[in-house]
Amino acid sequence: MNKLNVGLIGFGVVGSGVVKFLTERKKFIARKFDTEFVIKKICDRNIRAINRTGLSKSTVFTTDYNNVINDSEIDVVVELIGGLKPAEEIMMTSLRNGKHVVTANKELLAHKGKELFTEGKERHRDIYFEASVGAGIPIIKSIAEGLAGNKFNGVYGIINGTSNFILSEMTKNECTFDYALKEAQQRGYAESNPTLDISGMDSAHKLAVLIFLAFGKFVDIKDVYTEGISHITHADIEYAQSLNLTIKLLAIAKKSDDRLEARVHPTLIPKNHPLASVNGVFNALLLDTYPTGDVLLYGQGAGQMSAAGGVISDLINLALRHKLKSAARIESLVKENPTLKLKKMDDIEAKFYIRFMAIDKPGILSVISGILGKHGISIASVTQKIHKRSSAVPVFMLTHPAKEKKIRLALEKISRLAIVRSDPVAIRMEKF
Amino acid sequence: MNKLNVGLIGFGVVGSGVVKFLTERKKFIARKFDTEFVIKKICDRNIRAINRTGLSKSTVFTTDYNNVINDSEIDVVVELIGGLKPAEEIMMTSLRNGKHVVTANKELLAHKGKELFTEGKERHRDIYFEASVGAGIPIIKSIAEGLAGNKFNGVYGIINGTSNFILSEMTKNECTFDYALKEAQQRGYAESNPTLDISGMDSAHKLAVLIFLAFGKFVDIKDVYTEGISHITHADIEYAQSLNLTIKLLAIAKKSDDRLEARVHPTLIPKNHPLASVNGVFNALLLDTYPTGDVLLYGQGAGQMSAAGGVISDLINLALRHKLKSAARIESLVKENPTLKLKKMDDIEAKFYIRFMAIDKPGILSVISGILGKHGISIASVTQKIHKRSSAVPVFMLTHPAKEKKIRLALEKISRLAIVRSDPVAIRMEKF
Repeated sequence: MNKLNVGLIGFGVVGSGVVKFLTERKKFIARKFDTEFVIKKICDRNIRAINRTGLSKSTVFTTDYNNVINDSEIDVVVELIGGLKPAEEIMMTSLRNGKHVVTANKELLAHKGKELFTEGKERHRDIYFEASVGAGIPIIKSIAEGLAGNKFNGVYGIINGTSNFILSEMTKNECTFDYALKEAQQRGYAESNPTLDISGMDSAHKLAVLIFLAFGKFVDIKDVYTEGISHITHADIEYAQSLNLTIKLLAIAKKSDDRLEARVHPTLIPKNHPLASVNGVFNALLLDTYPTGDVLLYGQGAGQMSAAGGVISDLINLALRHKLKSAARIESLVKENPTLKLKKMDDIEAKFYIRFMAIDKPGILSVISGILGKHGISIASVTQKIHKRSSAVPVFMLTHPAKEKKIRLALEKISRLAIVRSDPVAIRMEKF
Repeated sequence: MNKLNVGLIGFGVVGSGVVKFLTERKKFIARKFDTEFVIKKICDRNIRAINRTGLSKSTVFTTDYNNVINDSEIDVVVELIGGLKPAEEIMMTSLRNGKHVVTANKELLAHKGKELFTEGKERHRDIYFEASVGAGIPIIKSIAEGLAGNKFNGVYGIINGTSNFILSEMTKNECTFDYALKEAQQRGYAESNPTLDISGMDSAHKLAVLIFLAFGKFVDIKDVYTEGISHITHADIEYAQSLNLTIKLLAIAKKSDDRLEARVHPTLIPKNHPLASVNGVFNALLLDTYPTGDVLLYGQGAGQMSAAGGVISDLINLALRHKLKSAARIESLVKENPTLKLKKMDDIEAKFYIRFMAIDKPGILSVISGILGKHGISIASVTQKIHKRSSAVPVFMLTHPAKEKKIRLALEKISRLAIVRSDPVAIRMEKF
């Protein structure tokens, strides 16, 4: 029997899910994979609240992670505390001390992936991180191994369950963003401080992970254009629906003109596109690959047990490679594409949906279209919902494909017009 | 540089796709995975027709596969001829001669999976078979590794592109089965002899592969209930649509009452189910797992380059494990669930759609419902489309959940009635 001593750091929702799952599947894992995972130590800031169900008496509890990462008997450290500090030190020291690492920490991987993988490579120790994107959906494994050798043209993901739940609620129940957010919080789908999710930052962290997997590039997270969903109104969704479109918070990485676009923002997509029907807290990832073609992965991208599922599959795959001295996957991940550069956001091209409030005076549309025209932007359609003299009405526009920079400059001018009473909202359309 | 000598047996559509892809991605594979694949020998029955594009001058062509499987310099044999013979001998001898094997041969794996894996385990040689189900979609990898440790409750697949194309065409264009089949043949989606596809046998082979991956059981293919699509008429599809249902050829393996159901047949599924929108030659697989939840994989399940994508990822993954003496994945695959037994088809329960032609005489429905009632089957709805005295009209029925055996016996009786002019067609409904 293959025996691996595990040190678990972070015993919150996912951590206790891991222990529950390991306990339930102990016999199966022993029979099927000839492997036993012994949870030797658990570290958490609050060890008093720990539920010992399923844990053996010999499991040691500690509030000091040093007791885990410096324990010479521990083979694998499972890091589930998230965030940058002290997670970085935990992972680095664990690798230096000859331990493998399993983590769900997208934020740390987005910021320090290259450094961590380099350390893993040099120490011949593996880093597994299936639960970092899409919880237990085998996304990481599919890109890094299942589609190994493929050329990735694009990666399009709905990878933040909270945001997708909010947008789905706003669509289904015709409610405001604030109402949908409260609903998400009440159901436990959103944190009391939901900033990381609704600002798009969580998706950006995950996109950075997908980018080094699919495109072999460690991006600076500051270079990933990131826009959240809190400015989306129900009027936007309604207008989108009238055009057979849906608004999704999409994480996009795609090659165009030998540059890589990396961006997270609310995106208009056709209603009949597979990603349009991904609703609620579900996650989905569309991979545009050569030669395998389009591959879609879909499932529960969040939740205690789905995330625990990702951690356990990592542990098993690690155990099955344990006898190997090299960390082959890490060695390939650390190798960057030497020439691929990011495209500047100003240079990307899309059709844009534009919405703003304006005083309904004759000639307003000719002023607006004049400004857009001067910037080389042509309008595909305009809708002005209600006509009320001297009070502001919403104006909706759809442009033909235009460069981001031109749209930005034109909107700056439009927002300074006296007849315009709100900052224009612009939403990019993706054609896939 | 890791160097693997490859022997390729079968140089048809997929085989030449593999060479094309390996040639195009040679530099990438060298840089990323530190690996070089040298195609040392290619075997095909017809070497005259071989296109040498992308092949080095040192590649040897042969019509005798013994020249490949007995070549001591070859590390991996890629078997792409399909069928049972001589593929079985090729794989067995290759393993015995210390070679790894990559294959797309679902038929052979369905029949001889256990014997092949046992041989691989004893010789410490790996067998990779990503392209056997869903071509390059990472289905095999996701079940065997990505979801390792999970408990599989059910596996539901649209895994035959030809059948799915035909049913999609019949739905979209309101055409007959024969017309849709011809269309599939013209587009190259169906063989000139399409029996394996439309009879459900190809799906049954693939289901057998999925069953040993997900449920750890090597089933006798004869025990997989298999029914094709050639008896489906446009009237069935139309009636299904009126009930918000779609007909798909589904491969189903699921646990119920501690038994495993294994069956391939046309199936009614709700239109809003993710599998219902999988159209044309696309494939999709829904995995009902614990604790990860539902996972859906979708993509191009057929075609030269998608299949080649599966073979190449197998080769790369093999190369990354090559230094390892054990064949860990094979070792786990060969371990069966010691207690899981198949459920008899007679014992499965479903709602049934029934269609038959009957003389439109008063009292006919009371005769039919009397027979069904005697077998404990209650009717949820009945539709009789046209009323023409003394000529046969189609009758459509939907039952409440009933055991297969009772339906079978009742339909035998109904088909013997003088007023019934065609053998009743029954389609099972799946509720997931």
